[in-house]
Amino acid sequence: MSEDTPLNGARSLIHSLVDAGVDVCFTNPGTSEMHFVQALDAVPAMRGVLAMFEGVATGAADGWARVTGRPAAVLLHLGPGLGNGLANLHNARRAHSPVLCIVGAHATGHVPYDAPLQSDIEGPARMASGWVHTSGTSRAVASDAMRALEATGRDGGQVATLVLPADVSWSDGGRRAPRRPAVEPLPIDRTVVDEVTGAVGDGSSTMLLLGGAALTERGLRAASRIAAATGARLLADRFVARMEQGAGVPTVQRLAYPTEKVRPQLEGVRRLVLAGAPSPVAFFAYPDLESDHVPSGCEVIELADRSQDVETALEEIAGRTAAGTEPELPDLDAPEPEPGPLSVRNLGTAIAATLPENAVVVDEGLTSSAGLPPALAHAPRHTLLTLTGGAIGQGLPVATGAAVGAPDRPVLSFQADGSALYTIQALWTQARERLDVTTVIVNNSAYAILRGELARTGAGEASERASRMLDLSDPTTDFVSIGQGFGVPSRKVTTTEELVAALREAYAEPGPHLIEAIVPPVA
Amino acid sequence: MSEDTPLNGARSLIHSLVDAGVDVCFTNPGTSEMHFVQALDAVPAMRGVLAMFEGVATGAADGWARVTGRPAAVLLHLGPGLGNGLANLHNARRAHSPVLCIVGAHATGHVPYDAPLQSDIEGPARMASGWVHTSGTSRAVASDAMRALEATGRDGGQVATLVLPADVSWSDGGRRAPRRPAVEPLPIDRTVVDEVTGAVGDGSSTMLLLGGAALTERGLRAASRIAAATGARLLADRFVARMEQGAGVPTVQRLAYPTEKVRPQLEGVRRLVLAGAPSPVAFFAYPDLESDHVPSGCEVIELADRSQDVETALEEIAGRTAAGTEPELPDLDAPEPEPGPLSVRNLGTAIAATLPENAVVVDEGLTSSAGLPPALAHAPRHTLLTLTGGAIGQGLPVATGAAVGAPDRPVLSFQADGSALYTIQALWTQARERLDVTTVIVNNSAYAILRGELARTGAGEASERASRMLDLSDPTTDFVSIGQGFGVPSRKVTTTEELVAALREAYAEPGPHLIEAIVPPVA
Repeated sequence: MSEDTPLNGARSLIHSLVDAGVDVCFTNPGTSEMHFVQALDAVPAMRGVLAMFEGVATGAADGWARVTGRPAAVLLHLGPGLGNGLANLHNARRAHSPVLCIVGAHATGHVPYDAPLQSDIEGPARMASGWVHTSGTSRAVASDAMRALEATGRDGGQVATLVLPADVSWSDGGRRAPRRPAVEPLPIDRTVVDEVTGAVGDGSSTMLLLGGAALTERGLRAASRIAAATGARLLADRFVARMEQGAGVPTVQRLAYPTEKVRPQLEGVRRLVLAGAPSPVAFFAYPDLESDHVPSGCEVIELADRSQDVETALEEIAGRTAAGTEPELPDLDAPEPEPGPLSVRNLGTAIAATLPENAVVVDEGLTSSAGLPPALAHAPRHTLLTLTGGAIGQGLPVATGAAVGAPDRPVLSFQADGSALYTIQALWTQARERLDVTTVIVNNSAYAILRGELARTGAGEASERASRMLDLSDPTTDFVSIGQGFGVPSRKVTTTEELVAALREAYAEPGPHLIEAIVPPVA
Repeated sequence: MSEDTPLNGARSLIHSLVDAGVDVCFTNPGTSEMHFVQALDAVPAMRGVLAMFEGVATGAADGWARVTGRPAAVLLHLGPGLGNGLANLHNARRAHSPVLCIVGAHATGHVPYDAPLQSDIEGPARMASGWVHTSGTSRAVASDAMRALEATGRDGGQVATLVLPADVSWSDGGRRAPRRPAVEPLPIDRTVVDEVTGAVGDGSSTMLLLGGAALTERGLRAASRIAAATGARLLADRFVARMEQGAGVPTVQRLAYPTEKVRPQLEGVRRLVLAGAPSPVAFFAYPDLESDHVPSGCEVIELADRSQDVETALEEIAGRTAAGTEPELPDLDAPEPEPGPLSVRNLGTAIAATLPENAVVVDEGLTSSAGLPPALAHAPRHTLLTLTGGAIGQGLPVATGAAVGAPDRPVLSFQADGSALYTIQALWTQARERLDVTTVIVNNSAYAILRGELARTGAGEASERASRMLDLSDPTTDFVSIGQGFGVPSRKVTTTEELVAALREAYAEPGPHLIEAIVPPVA
């Protein structure tokens, strides 16, 4: 910290990050980041985790932030590296994950020469970032990073991108900067609390839609007490960043994906209270369906957005409406998996029956996930992380980052085949870091979800040529072969019995494992 | 074409593309593109080529454009899909490849609801596109696409991005639009031709730096005649989009990568003539090295930029300075590969000794490519495609697209290990489309180029922690296993003899093959 310690910009940056509690950096570096990489030697408290593709690094940062609740850091290489990381930064944005994204850039004096890797960086960064800044001097870079970290806490958590020119890294004159105070949740409007307290008195015509911090155990318990005492209905957001689940935690259904299944969920709702969740909308638009899921004539009351203290608000309302009422809690009673060939249903029961205590479950199973929620409600207590922004290829990276962030918790990564292939390189990082991740890839040899979407959009029947764009069976990917290629012990299963045995063995042995679960091809 | 043919936007778009000669579309579609996919059935002349990752689709479009010389089309899904495709669109931009990038978007009425996949699209598109437009109506979409195709021909070739909202695809009222005239190269300034004609008279103190269309056989022959007659020196740009090479085509060295090797190449040059190439600059900036490669006191004359008719300009100058002089042409005389363990040198000779006639060679071998240029100069004539924008992960996709665009030419894809892993999913598309691509992945278990860069940037010695960020050996990737997982016959070789045998067998058998060439790990 003293004036006479010579520090280059990169070292001042890494020291300051560590001082602020950011001690892991997921990275796929290039030449412009070499001084940052070299500085990892000087600051042993910072752990660098290498990814072979930027989308793995950004998704891992998201997963790390979700399980630790702390800002995560990721280091990328120039505009194209940022591009490769954008899809999972988009998911992080929708998860409201606090992610500091550092993008190395050409040295400031090199920019005018328009070298081959020169491109705009700030522009594409804005697609997923709430805060973007290019650091100008070694003296300022650490304090710029502290402002960026502060920004990651705003709006309930967001991506902040700091562009780091190579000369800002390599020049002397760096100064360690102190951390800035964490952004606290904003208080709830008292009149809204009063209004919601009145509304829940009307029973089942009122629904609380829960998202964000309402899905912590504390939030779920308060909401469940309100529901038990008043008859108000509960629903959780569709794709949740993080939700507590399983035995001992109140069970709350999530908003369905297809519009036809949403309608019965919301039927009869006259007052919809948004508790940390956005207003419900269709995931995609379809020619003859409404985008807005709010029933006609239903009043929408926003109790709390993502930046507000929704847990306290729910507890206050519970205190006023449900004094003495206990929440309804599911028992530990996972259903017995039905033996035989794998199906959507027994995939869920097999996962639930074998799940270890205190696991993190990452769900990007898409059409294959339908059996999970009912089975997992009675599984041992766990934390669920899902695909928040719809940009597929998030599951394996998020599982990787979650395992780095919670090394004492087993991670189950439940993954569809098509989406696994966007960021399959995550397996290598799992092998290198010996992470306790058990990946189940469900191979149905199709973009099955798109088959449903083709029908749903009214695009009509797909004849052979269009079908071929949704079919992954020619050739069928062999995930066991790919997993082994990346250094992860891998096996194939086709029945519940084999899946259960493979899961038990995987959990029992340290390090990553891959299980390819073959299900019948989608017709 | 008649008013009474009902066409939705998607069909009018695809019909018009086919009418304009764009009959292949590389794609990774999603829900918002389902009507586009469905329309492939209605327009059998359009071939859809599916990729499992967007970076494969965009790189393949680049490769297709490079070998056919025609605008390529690629279809992506929303902002995150565009993000995944950006790195190879950046390479396409630097290659001046004409690429029409169609990005499906939410229906216009769905946008205000901020559904999870909603994001900015035009902003990130601008990173790599010279032209960006969001189509507003089904009536206009086909003519918008024709304007986009026209734009792909400007500035010597560029990326044009058309954002396609789902309702613009699915609504009726589409109208086929006629193609617009192709953009012709701009003429050269006569006074500059006179000036260069005078300058080459000074012999070896003048250098012609060749890029773009100067690297066609016609351009190279004219430049070679000038050099033979006047003593002027020739050099080609560092990373070329497309260059003719081999027996019967004048050999021109390319600009070196490291600054220390560039210096002797440009030593003594007093007049540097830019013939379709940009002024030479360092690829990256380094603390104590100049970015600008132009020697001190050297005059720079721009004969032609990428939008100008450089071939004609060179022929005119040759006509005035080298009447009767023939170009120097290398014989077909590939050096005999030295037997034994593989090295950078005998990788090159083995490739050259086995190369079939009329091949396309895609080179993303990075540090392992050093042996290629001297060996390939005497190989059978071929077309070379290289990494234009420095965004690694371009080789396998470009080779894939080149094979689709030139089905009668064998494609050799020479690939470094680290960079292969960014877009390894390209192997699956090669298998599905039965493409004649022979991929050689050189496995040295490191980001070897970054080891050199770490030293070059003066970042100092890397101790264990920093080295680990450049090392790919824990675990070592098994590319044979991964290739087989994607359905490509794969084998491992460790000696020249094995490599030569594997190459011969691969060329002799239709469809894709992968050869993993093990070389000693980089120290």
